Amino acid sequence: MSEARTEFSVVGKRIPKLDAAQKAMGRAEYIQDKKIPGMLYGRILYSKYANANIIKIDTSKAKALPGVHAVLTGEDVPPKMKMGFIKDNPPIKKDRVSSFRDEVAAVAAISPEIAGAALSLIEIEYEQLPGVFDPEKAMEKESPLVHQHLKSNVLKMPWDIHYGDVEKAEKESAFVVEDRFTTTWVTHCCLGTSGAIALFDAANNLTIYSNTQIPSLAQKDFLEALKSMGIENKRVRVIKPIIGGGFGSKLDTYAYEHIAILLAHKCGKPVKITFDRVEEFKATSTRQPTVIYIKQGCDKNGKLTFRDMRMVLDNGAHTSWGATTPSVMLMPISSLYRVENVKYVAKCVYTNNTYSQAMRGYGNPQATFAIESSIDMLAEKAGIDRIEFRRINKNQSGDETPQGLKITSCGLSECIDAVEKEMNFVDKKEKGVGTGIASLIHVGGGARIYGSDGCGAILKMDDYGKVDIFTGGTDMGQGLDNITAQIVAEELGLGAEDINVVHSDTDICPWDVGAHASRSTFVAGNAALGAAKEVKKKLQKFASKILDAPADEIEFKDKLVFVPGDPEKSMPIGKLLRKAHFSPNGTMFMADYFYDPDNQNMGNKLKGNMSMTYSFGAHGAKVRVDEETGKVEVLEYVAAHDVGKAINPLLLEGQVYGGVIMGLGYALTEEVILKEGENMNANFRDYKLFTAKDAVKIKAPVIETDDEDGPFGAKGIGEPGCVPTAPAIANAIYDAVGVRIKNLPITPEKVLAALQEKKKRPAN
Amino acid sequence: MSEARTEFSVVGKRIPKLDAAQKAMGRAEYIQDKKIPGMLYGRILYSKYANANIIKIDTSKAKALPGVHAVLTGEDVPPKMKMGFIKDNPPIKKDRVSSFRDEVAAVAAISPEIAGAALSLIEIEYEQLPGVFDPEKAMEKESPLVHQHLKSNVLKMPWDIHYGDVEKAEKESAFVVEDRFTTTWVTHCCLGTSGAIALFDAANNLTIYSNTQIPSLAQKDFLEALKSMGIENKRVRVIKPIIGGGFGSKLDTYAYEHIAILLAHKCGKPVKITFDRVEEFKATSTRQPTVIYIKQGCDKNGKLTFRDMRMVLDNGAHTSWGATTPSVMLMPISSLYRVENVKYVAKCVYTNNTYSQAMRGYGNPQATFAIESSIDMLAEKAGIDRIEFRRINKNQSGDETPQGLKITSCGLSECIDAVEKEMNFVDKKEKGVGTGIASLIHVGGGARIYGSDGCGAILKMDDYGKVDIFTGGTDMGQGLDNITAQIVAEELGLGAEDINVVHSDTDICPWDVGAHASRSTFVAGNAALGAAKEVKKKLQKFASKILDAPADEIEFKDKLVFVPGDPEKSMPIGKLLRKAHFSPNGTMFMADYFYDPDNQNMGNKLKGNMSMTYSFGAHGAKVRVDEETGKVEVLEYVAAHDVGKAINPLLLEGQVYGGVIMGLGYALTEEVILKEGENMNANFRDYKLFTAKDAVKIKAPVIETDDEDGPFGAKGIGEPGCVPTAPAIANAIYDAVGVRIKNLPITPEKVLAALQEKKKRPAN
Repeated sequence: MSEARTEFSVVGKRIPKLDAAQKAMGRAEYIQDKKIPGMLYGRILYSKYANANIIKIDTSKAKALPGVHAVLTGEDVPPKMKMGFIKDNPPIKKDRVSSFRDEVAAVAAISPEIAGAALSLIEIEYEQLPGVFDPEKAMEKESPLVHQHLKSNVLKMPWDIHYGDVEKAEKESAFVVEDRFTTTWVTHCCLGTSGAIALFDAANNLTIYSNTQIPSLAQKDFLEALKSMGIENKRVRVIKPIIGGGFGSKLDTYAYEHIAILLAHKCGKPVKITFDRVEEFKATSTRQPTVIYIKQGCDKNGKLTFRDMRMVLDNGAHTSWGATTPSVMLMPISSLYRVENVKYVAKCVYTNNTYSQAMRGYGNPQATFAIESSIDMLAEKAGIDRIEFRRINKNQSGDETPQGLKITSCGLSECIDAVEKEMNFVDKKEKGVGTGIASLIHVGGGARIYGSDGCGAILKMDDYGKVDIFTGGTDMGQGLDNITAQIVAEELGLGAEDINVVHSDTDICPWDVGAHASRSTFVAGNAALGAAKEVKKKLQKFASKILDAPADEIEFKDKLVFVPGDPEKSMPIGKLLRKAHFSPNGTMFMADYFYDPDNQNMGNKLKGNMSMTYSFGAHGAKVRVDEETGKVEVLEYVAAHDVGKAINPLLLEGQVYGGVIMGLGYALTEEVILKEGENMNANFRDYKLFTAKDAVKIKAPVIETDDEDGPFGAKGIGEPGCVPTAPAIANAIYDAVGVRIKNLPITPEKVLAALQEKKKRPAN
Repeated sequence: MSEARTEFSVVGKRIPKLDAAQKAMGRAEYIQDKKIPGMLYGRILYSKYANANIIKIDTSKAKALPGVHAVLTGEDVPPKMKMGFIKDNPPIKKDRVSSFRDEVAAVAAISPEIAGAALSLIEIEYEQLPGVFDPEKAMEKESPLVHQHLKSNVLKMPWDIHYGDVEKAEKESAFVVEDRFTTTWVTHCCLGTSGAIALFDAANNLTIYSNTQIPSLAQKDFLEALKSMGIENKRVRVIKPIIGGGFGSKLDTYAYEHIAILLAHKCGKPVKITFDRVEEFKATSTRQPTVIYIKQGCDKNGKLTFRDMRMVLDNGAHTSWGATTPSVMLMPISSLYRVENVKYVAKCVYTNNTYSQAMRGYGNPQATFAIESSIDMLAEKAGIDRIEFRRINKNQSGDETPQGLKITSCGLSECIDAVEKEMNFVDKKEKGVGTGIASLIHVGGGARIYGSDGCGAILKMDDYGKVDIFTGGTDMGQGLDNITAQIVAEELGLGAEDINVVHSDTDICPWDVGAHASRSTFVAGNAALGAAKEVKKKLQKFASKILDAPADEIEFKDKLVFVPGDPEKSMPIGKLLRKAHFSPNGTMFMADYFYDPDNQNMGNKLKGNMSMTYSFGAHGAKVRVDEETGKVEVLEYVAAHDVGKAINPLLLEGQVYGGVIMGLGYALTEEVILKEGENMNANFRDYKLFTAKDAVKIKAPVIETDDEDGPFGAKGIGEPGCVPTAPAIANAIYDAVGVRIKNLPITPEKVLAALQEKKKRPAN
């Protein structure tokens, strides 16, 4: 759909987030603000143990508390109401709990305080059982089973891939490196905590306000929930209020939503459940902790010969989308740099820990941490400059990778150039200072991980040239509202302020698979552009009669409809619209469009072109390591990305800055500490969220490669900012002080220990 | 668009109002229920006099009251902010008040109580002036001028019509009758009182929740209001909550809406204004009181020869749509029964009374009261049975009336037959019992009183065969939601419960001129049908490939897509939809349609076919008159209507029953009593609203004439129920006791006085 245009009126402009003022002035209505007359407040009771049998629950005292409308236990949950990717998780557990996060009861009351008091009146007798908290241990035969009815803690998943011939390639390699890396739990830390309000109308149709990134898929989940409750052939309306961050955390439906539905139905009143910060830390999902074994080789010229990776993921006690991240990890494993022979085995393992979920990058940060750390080690072993090494192996337009990814536009080379230009990789003026680089590949043109990767858009114009567009795409703060408005405005010759973007309401907005995989600018952008083109065609046809000119010669700019070069043939668009509207048999202009990319569902063999295009990037970091304390200070950071086309550079930079900061937290400080499954640091301070105070100045060169399928050439860039950050930092630390930290986060303790270890080692 | 179909699955079914249970269970959110965080409450201070100069306003005490956020007077209203049909009415008056209803100040405070207290602290010094309260007096030269800057109290309007040659026809007539009729103020008595909430976003875009029948035209008014405030190029979103009755009362924008906007802008907070019942009576508009002079003649065979009518309307102090009712009165005057020669002069006159507004029938009940009373008198004079007389002159398909109305489908004759069949007009078993009949013509296929008579619809389907349709049409309790759902369901072979009708939100719903002129079933119905046909075409095209059959052979019924007669070629619609959706390059089905009828704007000569079709009806009443008390009891009532096609007979009957009850109130009891402009009976009891207790059993035969332009043959029937009720009752009273009451309402006092007067008269 590329226009190969060079002149733009609205696209490419730094237009502030359309709802920025609303949010800054405190006028945005978050789920916390929303009240519905008659609304009750729900609260959830969680397990006291990581693994236990529930012997007895006595809710009589809770039920007797004045103001309590309902108390639910596992007995009240329809047997078929299950959540998650493989539907292994009932919203309230009945006989057995498998993690501290497991829900055991829920209450609805006239105030959150009374609901809380009622929870404390629920008496539960448990029989505590030994748990398993390490995924590699959980794979051992003698390990306790998290789910008794399954014969193994290892999930049945298809990741045992072999492209080319890795054994042969290894034998023929000049240099080979091999190592083990680990990453731990981190979490999204959305500033807006989770919440939902469920209400039924008199006909048992459900409306649910929920902090979700997937209104359409959530609608499907809730339809199934209703079905499990015996409510069939009814409607579900999902409305996503303004949310304070998503980052993948809201890519599934959760217990609190299902419990709100059950309570609302039981009470015949709206029921709201919102999390406080502690609950947000303890009862929402994390990024998957991974144990990664990697071996890579190259020939004597530095050309990569093979990559062999084995991965063990901690799934936690239940299964959500996090369990599918190995499919996305496959992308960098198979396709970051040209490498013909690839082997990849991943195992996702049940433990009695919290269960994991999608998080920005969806496995890519974990995989790229290992790959790009290992690439530096391999380059060093081969005696080739690390940047040169990457150039030798860079992806290029026209490539098809072993996995079957078709590389169309590709600016990886330019990204590496830009990082090198912005940061001096050679001169180290100070002791303890070093530089690092790491690259990334990510889906940039959708990702067919579901039957449809599509998005619909509907558009209508008023009598003055204002547009309402209903998009399936979900703005969750990332700026899809601006992107949509700018694309439509550009196409119709209007201003962004003329475009009203309606999103996140399944009654109004067409279907969309959800805000994930950095797909919204590309897919929802193409849907919006498609609708704009449709309406433009209709406008041209009508204007053709009015301006007495061929339809295809009529252009739109600055709110004018005109024939270029013929000043007589020009009319304000509002006038044209009113001319069409205000006469017998009049008309107004509307259009719809459904865009579904022509990308491939990889299937069980995990081969196929999962995205229409891929985003590339290279990050460079300069750090100073305090050898006394092990503390790492980031001095400079460059994050160059191939974005196809920057629809809005201001928001794009915001995405990149935010991604890098998230990546720095992942690299250096952030960690959910679980002790035998129990959260030990459920607050921002002890979690060590990377804050504004910790932030560094980031340079974000933008490489535009005009992708032929992207809307005005754009590709997705929502996730990449956090993908190669950890290895860039790890590589810079190694460059600075010669120690390689292989376990995230790279805390001062780990650096100091490594430095001390290094001192003990004899120099080679 | 007629289908000339005889078999229907959903159309024609008695499906209860889709939101009935919500309303019955108290879950419907009316404007009174709606709360927005931070919302303030506005209240309005009205004039103490019918006509006065404002010498001084002191708001200092009101402003000093804790909790008061703003106090407005006429000084705070932008000079260009004017309301009404000819923009003669600022929302707060400055130097002069012209009616008791005139707004002189307004307050916003943190509670309605504080706002009320603040009103009582506003000190105003008036100079009282003599007023004029009778429209005929107001036409006299020496009468005080309501608006000083105008040279006359008579509005400049075009109603001086002469079709044919009335003078000649009168001379040639065998029989002529002539009389004077009057009607007084009645009001809509909506059970939901008026109200609005205005709020601005950070960018000065306005959202206004308002009880309106005209979301799109209100949006235009409010855009102009913003412009007058210096706020240009912003968006206005009008959302109509569920409203408790419209009946024409909400066909304009009002002071309370403009004041809410001014207060919300001044305070930077949402401001809500709702009326209590007293305010609803005193500060909302009435039906136009009229003085009607009518002369009609017929030849010796009873064929009408001419109709000559002169009308004086009390406009009140300001001008709203009520002032245009003479244009609609022209319809029965020119076109109820065949009459070639018509003269019509109407004058709309300013007085210091409350100003009038559209009300169900829009002038037609007033005109028809005079016409149909006079028809009975003429029939009697000519010695022809009153029913026979009507048959002689009945309208017929193919007629073009003097005004230029093109009579397409016409069931007047069948309506008269049905009334005669249902009610015995001949036998009078009791003393004081009599029967009466009266007919009606009304617009039934839109009414082009504005540049566009159009309505848009947008439709989308999900993966299971559920539909969301956004209609421009406004459901205000009359049942447009059902009508829309049934039409769409019929066309797509679905159930009404599968169709979700979204209406009354200008951001979401396409444009529509408003819920007036009984146009919604016809115009919004055709828009919905058009969108359904569009989407059906797309579905057929796709199904053609799947079922391997020509697209036009594929039909839709019972949620199946199939080729009739070929059982192999059949598929559940949900399956078809999912087949289309869930594959690369997939699609979903959406469509839009804008329907604007091909009817004519009458222009200044008031000639043209204002509607695509016309509804007809005949009402029969049997009454008993108590000659001791003058009290009239309605014993039987038959209301037969030509509705084209009953999309939903249950709701249709509801419309007719409601119309007749409203008409009976108009005929017998209801009256706003103004004493020198001041409301004397601002409550239901003293207003004598016709209540459920007063209701009579109504038979409502439905005549279906399958209109060729109506959706599935339907025409509009919202207003007709109350049009011929008063003359049917008046004619029955005359039949019962020989007195003709020419002034509405026909109170026992008037009947008794007439009976006494009759006794005094020598028998002739």
